[in-house]
Amino acid sequence: MVIILKENPEKKQFDNLVAWLKSMDLTIHMSQGIDTTILGLVGDTSEVDADLINALDIVKTVKRISDPFKNANRKFHPLDTVISCPILRGEDNSETADDKGNHLSSRQPSGIEAKIGGGYFSIIAGPCSVESEEQVISIARSVKASGAGFLRGGAFKPRTSPYSFQGMRATGIKYLLEAKQKTGLPIVSEIMDISQIELFEDVDVIQVGARNMQNFELLKELGHTNKPILLKRGLSSTLEELLMSAEYIMAGGNERIILCERGIRTFETATRNTLDLSAIPWLKEKSHLPIIVDPSHATGIRELVLPMSMAATAAGADGLMVEVHNDPEHALCDGPQSLTPEQFDTLAKAIAHVRPVSFRPESPVS
Amino acid sequence: MVIILKENPEKKQFDNLVAWLKSMDLTIHMSQGIDTTILGLVGDTSEVDADLINALDIVKTVKRISDPFKNANRKFHPLDTVISCPILRGEDNSETADDKGNHLSSRQPSGIEAKIGGGYFSIIAGPCSVESEEQVISIARSVKASGAGFLRGGAFKPRTSPYSFQGMRATGIKYLLEAKQKTGLPIVSEIMDISQIELFEDVDVIQVGARNMQNFELLKELGHTNKPILLKRGLSSTLEELLMSAEYIMAGGNERIILCERGIRTFETATRNTLDLSAIPWLKEKSHLPIIVDPSHATGIRELVLPMSMAATAAGADGLMVEVHNDPEHALCDGPQSLTPEQFDTLAKAIAHVRPVSFRPESPVS
Amino acid sequence: MVIILKENPEKKQFDNLVAWLKSMDLTIHMSQGIDTTILGLVGDTSEVDADLINALDIVKTVKRISDPFKNANRKFHPLDTVISCPILRGEDNSETADDKGNHLSSRQPSGIEAKIGGGYFSIIAGPCSVESEEQVISIARSVKASGAGFLRGGAFKPRTSPYSFQGMRATGIKYLLEAKQKTGLPIVSEIMDISQIELFEDVDVIQVGARNMQNFELLKELGHTNKPILLKRGLSSTLEELLMSAEYIMAGGNERIILCERGIRTFETATRNTLDLSAIPWLKEKSHLPIIVDPSHATGIRELVLPMSMAATAAGADGLMVEVHNDPEHALCDGPQSLTPEQFDTLAKAIAHVRPVSFRPESPVS
Amino acid sequence: MVIILKENPEKKQFDNLVAWLKSMDLTIHMSQGIDTTILGLVGDTSEVDADLINALDIVKTVKRISDPFKNANRKFHPLDTVISCPILRGEDNSETADDKGNHLSSRQPSGIEAKIGGGYFSIIAGPCSVESEEQVISIARSVKASGAGFLRGGAFKPRTSPYSFQGMRATGIKYLLEAKQKTGLPIVSEIMDISQIELFEDVDVIQVGARNMQNFELLKELGHTNKPILLKRGLSSTLEELLMSAEYIMAGGNERIILCERGIRTFETATRNTLDLSAIPWLKEKSHLPIIVDPSHATGIRELVLPMSMAATAAGADGLMVEVHNDPEHALCDGPQSLTPEQFDTLAKAIAHVRPVSFRPESPVS
Repeated sequence: MVIILKENPEKKQFDNLVAWLKSMDLTIHMSQGIDTTILGLVGDTSEVDADLINALDIVKTVKRISDPFKNANRKFHPLDTVISCPILRGEDNSETADDKGNHLSSRQPSGIEAKIGGGYFSIIAGPCSVESEEQVISIARSVKASGAGFLRGGAFKPRTSPYSFQGMRATGIKYLLEAKQKTGLPIVSEIMDISQIELFEDVDVIQVGARNMQNFELLKELGHTNKPILLKRGLSSTLEELLMSAEYIMAGGNERIILCERGIRTFETATRNTLDLSAIPWLKEKSHLPIIVDPSHATGIRELVLPMSMAATAAGADGLMVEVHNDPEHALCDGPQSLTPEQFDTLAKAIAHVRPVSFRPESPVS
Repeated sequence: MVIILKENPEKKQFDNLVAWLKSMDLTIHMSQGIDTTILGLVGDTSEVDADLINALDIVKTVKRISDPFKNANRKFHPLDTVISCPILRGEDNSETADDKGNHLSSRQPSGIEAKIGGGYFSIIAGPCSVESEEQVISIARSVKASGAGFLRGGAFKPRTSPYSFQGMRATGIKYLLEAKQKTGLPIVSEIMDISQIELFEDVDVIQVGARNMQNFELLKELGHTNKPILLKRGLSSTLEELLMSAEYIMAGGNERIILCERGIRTFETATRNTLDLSAIPWLKEKSHLPIIVDPSHATGIRELVLPMSMAATAAGADGLMVEVHNDPEHALCDGPQSLTPEQFDTLAKAIAHVRPVSFRPESPVS
Repeated sequence: MVIILKENPEKKQFDNLVAWLKSMDLTIHMSQGIDTTILGLVGDTSEVDADLINALDIVKTVKRISDPFKNANRKFHPLDTVISCPILRGEDNSETADDKGNHLSSRQPSGIEAKIGGGYFSIIAGPCSVESEEQVISIARSVKASGAGFLRGGAFKPRTSPYSFQGMRATGIKYLLEAKQKTGLPIVSEIMDISQIELFEDVDVIQVGARNMQNFELLKELGHTNKPILLKRGLSSTLEELLMSAEYIMAGGNERIILCERGIRTFETATRNTLDLSAIPWLKEKSHLPIIVDPSHATGIRELVLPMSMAATAAGADGLMVEVHNDPEHALCDGPQSLTPEQFDTLAKAIAHVRPVSFRPESPVS
Repeated sequence: MVIILKENPEKKQFDNLVAWLKSMDLTIHMSQGIDTTILGLVGDTSEVDADLINALDIVKTVKRISDPFKNANRKFHPLDTVISCPILRGEDNSETADDKGNHLSSRQPSGIEAKIGGGYFSIIAGPCSVESEEQVISIARSVKASGAGFLRGGAFKPRTSPYSFQGMRATGIKYLLEAKQKTGLPIVSEIMDISQIELFEDVDVIQVGARNMQNFELLKELGHTNKPILLKRGLSSTLEELLMSAEYIMAGGNERIILCERGIRTFETATRNTLDLSAIPWLKEKSHLPIIVDPSHATGIRELVLPMSMAATAAGADGLMVEVHNDPEHALCDGPQSLTPEQFDTLAKAIAHVRPVSFRPESPVS
């Protein structure tokens, strides 16, 4: 960290600052120019509050040299983090074993794991909103057949209007678990408040939506769970802020985080948001955490989901999150970005072709 | 609402759409061109989900004509909402009446009310973070002397880094209440999670910060309280989204909302955010809710707080929210935008001069 | 300027850099940490190309301490620049003196000057586009009667579509000069290309529009004229870039520049652009150049022009630029932000009330 | 186009509007609700000025249904435009034929064409700025060897500061032509002003930079040339505005345009700009013009150029524009995003692997 002082700093304030910095075990290199004094701090500055120093009367500006995040930092954790969830056998692939027709082996691992990060790649697919048991199970089966590693589905829905459908809530979670029971696919669903955590006990990956990326109380609480957290970038959050939000969760002890780029808010109105794919290589250089991309919400346009999925994969993403619905003709509930199962199958095949030629940074892999 | 269909819409889907719209008691005017069909909907469309219609395969685009908010809409509530909190007498201005030295009358109303909206104007002032009992009481006394109507102070602090000071939390609320006890000023403090609501029982105005503007679960819960809510605009939220968040609270029954413009995130880095003062007259035309401005957080620069406060007042704001700290020389905790009590006094005087010549829309006043 | 080097810089490159910096008469303070080397440069760094240094393999980052602009910098020119144009007597206020009916004295100064900057304030008013001689003269007379100091009118119009009206061009300039002949008001009009400069010979103030703020060839050429330049901020230009564009003109020898804030492009769609009024005090602190505000183009909404004009004035603007048209009922050519002459008269009166209580920085005045 | 009127429009104004619309050969479908009147216009509305209609007192809002661009519109020109430039034999590959050592055949076509669009893909590579004859020739030879189809080099440089290097200008063009003479590669260089057009007589593709995307006078003039124009998206320009700027050139008769996505300005500071790759499929659906991507300027970070090039290619781009410099160790002039010739060779090979699996829209190909 470099602190640049204003001209002629008041001596007492200057002494206060130096004493305070030294109390944090920092070594100070001072460089005195004619009208500028520069303090170079050497030591662990990740817990030094730059805003606080910047607020001092005698300080002109502060510049961080080292990153403000530690647990998420590749520098200190060179190996890629891998998030792994077992795909269960599922009733669909199990023998009905007992005389009551129960599928005794359905909860056993299938031997396959859905993995994200460290060279592994998975697609998370499913409906924007859970609407019915039949819908979720039907979609789960079709996306599994196409090769998806996870089933997603919204039970709690953040909606701009209080008059819009707010999701099936607890019932939605129940239906997702039914679909997992049938297909064995691990499930991903969004949480909106601390009070909902216990409902997510059997959910495999808890999603934090863009609007909650800086809901710090929720992040702290999720830091005490033992589940992978899918953390979506906020609509107006910088990449550094995304890593700092991951840091909140990791500081609580939970290091299993999947970052998700899902578009940022800009002046452009042709697409719903502006998908920032440079986030992928930038984040992978700075952090060991896996990064996936949600092209459905980012673009809001069905026709753009396939090309943006291919682009994200080519840029080195560790996975995708794609909206799929089963019955667009009769449904009034899915977004203009949802794919049909057939379209999703085409996408999965295209991605399988892009994967072998996609970007691989030279960073070490676990 | 106007729905523009794609060329040659599939008949079955078209019939489904028309039937569904009619089921919501909407009248449909159809206008058939050579390659375009336009449906004009007449009736209450505020609960019609435009995203949902936009998602249909046969729909090209949807355009709302009437606003999607109702409770916050001036059209249906022409009179300005006034938020009013009594200023208590306070121990500082009370007789010590009993033999234990208690100030019996300190909790009685002083006869003065701090009011915001409907032609009334108040300044909310105080420290960014509560640091100690002495600090808060000292600042409360000085801002009251300068004419502030409310004391603000952060007990729960949303910080980008988990390693930064997170606020004194419950203790901070206690110190604020002590300051209210002494000075009689109603207090404003920020809530960050539903679980904190009970701690705010004696807080006069609950603030929802920019990062929580779309924490919908929190908004719903606040809709069931009986306290004024100070709702800050999100960093990347449109003005319509701000009104929709107010609508969330109002839909729960709580109609006492103060909107707060505090700058939006743009490409400009000269100031911390870009203060959008056109929000004031725009919101006042669309809504009956009062609107105040926080120039401290918006600009992040001490020297800009005074001119931006004057500008906001001239544009017709119903109040200001200003950061004041008491001892910048020794404190290491306030932002570069905090004013000293003397600077705040200058500001209060300047505002008193601008108020009489400030913009008054022609809209009816309660 | 502070240069922060990467760990273990290659010695040859390091020596090259140091030699090159010294060749520019800069003194270097080196601060060597364990894994960081910091170079503090002392001397005139305004002509040092920070991008170029930042591109070097051994450099981690560069931070400017002093501003990259010199001529526009208040530090080196503490006194406010005042732009002054004489208001001529005009035929409307002149005796017809000779036997041919010529108004001999119409080109004589009226004794009044329209001034902007250094405590002086003027309103520039007129139609977005010049449409006819009658229109311009009629508007000129009415805005003069209301107190405007300058007449504006667009002859060359930058339009997004090649199929939209591109302005009356040379004829438009001619009509503006006719209006000046009648009323004596100095005129302001926008230039779009170097080749048009000679047409502006009798124009008093040449406007550079937002889209041309970084048309550097045009700026250089205007630096060789002897006319005041009204330089509008680009839609996505930072305030520092605005000053750098002023610097382009000043580097050519022309120091008579009026800066103009006219809104920046953000995600918000409620207004056409987001008016950034904090630009006023920020620019006045950094620069001695006057700054005016164009609330008409910034907001694009008629009802917001008055409150934003009042806010800009309260914040310390040196002037306003307001669109006025004369016959909105029959015209098909003016923007939704144009005021009628009556509305403009109301605005001028409101501004006259705000001016005495508006923000005055403590910076020295010429 | 749909025009939505305010409640109770004044009859005279309404009649004026209807008469004016009819005078443009438009058919009007009127839909009368209780408090809304909707006019649906049928016919060619591309030359109808929506801003102008929106400005009318009786109009609430206007919504375009059909696109405002015609020549650039795929609807009317379904086949992809292909831009093709011959690669000459070049002195490097020619016999010295006469007794003076002249390479008689160097200006003959090599038989290979560099093509962009319609399924063809080319990489444009070269230095940001032309610095010397040796530099340009050396880079030209190496990028040709790696498979580049065009040589780029900046002779006129738009720089934020008047004190930064402004390019070698005419001499720079001369050196580029020397490099073409040697290698046969067609050259691309940026124009900054109309007055420079004649200097570009032997330049193969004229580039319009981001800052000049809305320099409409320049665009009009380029519409009268017979050269391909590489039109870069402005920093804050929407995709529709980019197409409208292409339309300016095409309206003049020049239909050979290459669009270029090069990042937009957002709040994110991790990268120089935010590369908007969804522009590729969006533009290809709307327009027949080819679209290439400049990952160097978009990201400003060397390490991101390769992954973003791969992503752009996977998303269906028709080409890339990449900065390459030859001697980063000794040069003080190239951007932090420039690749070495070796890095460029790696990039070209990676792109060759991605091309066969990249996105192909179903639109017809020429």
